[in-house]
Amino acid sequence: MTRTPRKAPHAPTAEDEHKHHLCMPEESRKKAARRLAIARGHLESIQRQLDDPHAYCIDVLRQLSAVQGALSGAAEVVLRGHLEAHVATAALRGDESEIVEELMEALKYT
Amino acid sequence: MTRTPRKAPHAPTAEDEHKHHLCMPEESRKKAARRLAIARGHLESIQRQLDDPHAYCIDVLRQLSAVQGALSGAAEVVLRGHLEAHVATAALRGDESEIVEELMEALKYT
Amino acid sequence: MTRTPRKAPHAPTAEDEHKHHLCMPEESRKKAARRLAIARGHLESIQRQLDDPHAYCIDVLRQLSAVQGALSGAAEVVLRGHLEAHVATAALRGDESEIVEELMEALKYT
Amino acid sequence: MTRTPRKAPHAPTAEDEHKHHLCMPEESRKKAARRLAIARGHLESIQRQLDDPHAYCIDVLRQLSAVQGALSGAAEVVLRGHLEAHVATAALRGDESEIVEELMEALKYT
Repeated sequence: MTRTPRKAPHAPTAEDEHKHHLCMPEESRKKAARRLAIARGHLESIQRQLDDPHAYCIDVLRQLSAVQGALSGAAEVVLRGHLEAHVATAALRGDESEIVEELMEALKYT
Repeated sequence: MTRTPRKAPHAPTAEDEHKHHLCMPEESRKKAARRLAIARGHLESIQRQLDDPHAYCIDVLRQLSAVQGALSGAAEVVLRGHLEAHVATAALRGDESEIVEELMEALKYT
Repeated sequence: MTRTPRKAPHAPTAEDEHKHHLCMPEESRKKAARRLAIARGHLESIQRQLDDPHAYCIDVLRQLSAVQGALSGAAEVVLRGHLEAHVATAALRGDESEIVEELMEALKYT
Repeated sequence: MTRTPRKAPHAPTAEDEHKHHLCMPEESRKKAARRLAIARGHLESIQRQLDDPHAYCIDVLRQLSAVQGALSGAAEVVLRGHLEAHVATAALRGDESEIVEELMEALKYT
């Protein structure tokens, strides 16, 4: 759960400590990366589709939905890892307020 | 991904004719392509982010939301073009039922 | 498709004419009303659930999702009726721009 | 809708104990109830709107979106309370897996 602040050559500030001591669980990271690779392949195929003057709107909308679905799948993986590794353990660390606040904020855009 | 009937060496069937004579307005196609290029750049940067063992879940969730937003923007462009070019003119062609049915189906996944 | 402006005792203005000459198809209206009655019953039961100090968050979230689903179902009925009765016929009336613009605006909030 | 085990005359089973010892924080419960009251008033006004044969689809869609927004607001209140009171403390109780699992399941429908 602990880690040295990302790349800061300077001594970590209190805020750095607070914000940066949590890392994504490796399993979520690998799994999310695999899903993103699929989403990207799909997105590239829509880009090629849009090069064709005969592309039909509905086909493009369907493909876009498929990519959105793949990205939602990746977000689900990340969220699950975050809940397990960081939110469920917040009371042990004593940062419940911050952790809930930033999660609510991030979910707003999902 | 390519809509076969247009390049098909065989003569188009009646159904082909009905389903495939509509093409995406060029303006929507170009505009959607530009938005997808942005979304793809963004997606690639999340892929790099996930290579870093220090990636933080919330940062990744926020980036994923940004890409989702870009894709929704592209879908909005495509939908608007479709409504203007193909749905608003359906009664002139007489294919209202089919055009509404396929749109409702496509929106379900959006 | 035509109707007299809603309740205005005054002579209709040009804008009234433009905005108010379309009515919801009766079938959509009845069907949407039935779905809303179900959604409302469901919502009332969540209100009772929230009177119980033993209510559990997850149970409430699930019930809220069920009501959201019922409302989406109602919105789908209304949208389909609108596409068939008003959007697909826009080119016949010549108000394509307005009809597409207001629909895109309304969908943004869905 | 009431969670039986709490009032059940029979002795709670181990599973009952595990699943049912958590109650919604009172503040969330009151706040969510107020939001639902607003949503319900709004929903009733759409029901009246649908009694009018002159109702216009786009007006109804906009009203439906407003109710959806009010329900999302209520769900947000419930989710925040749940994260603070039950998820952030899961490691103290030792039920991380169950609590994350049921939350992911509930969010799927949101």
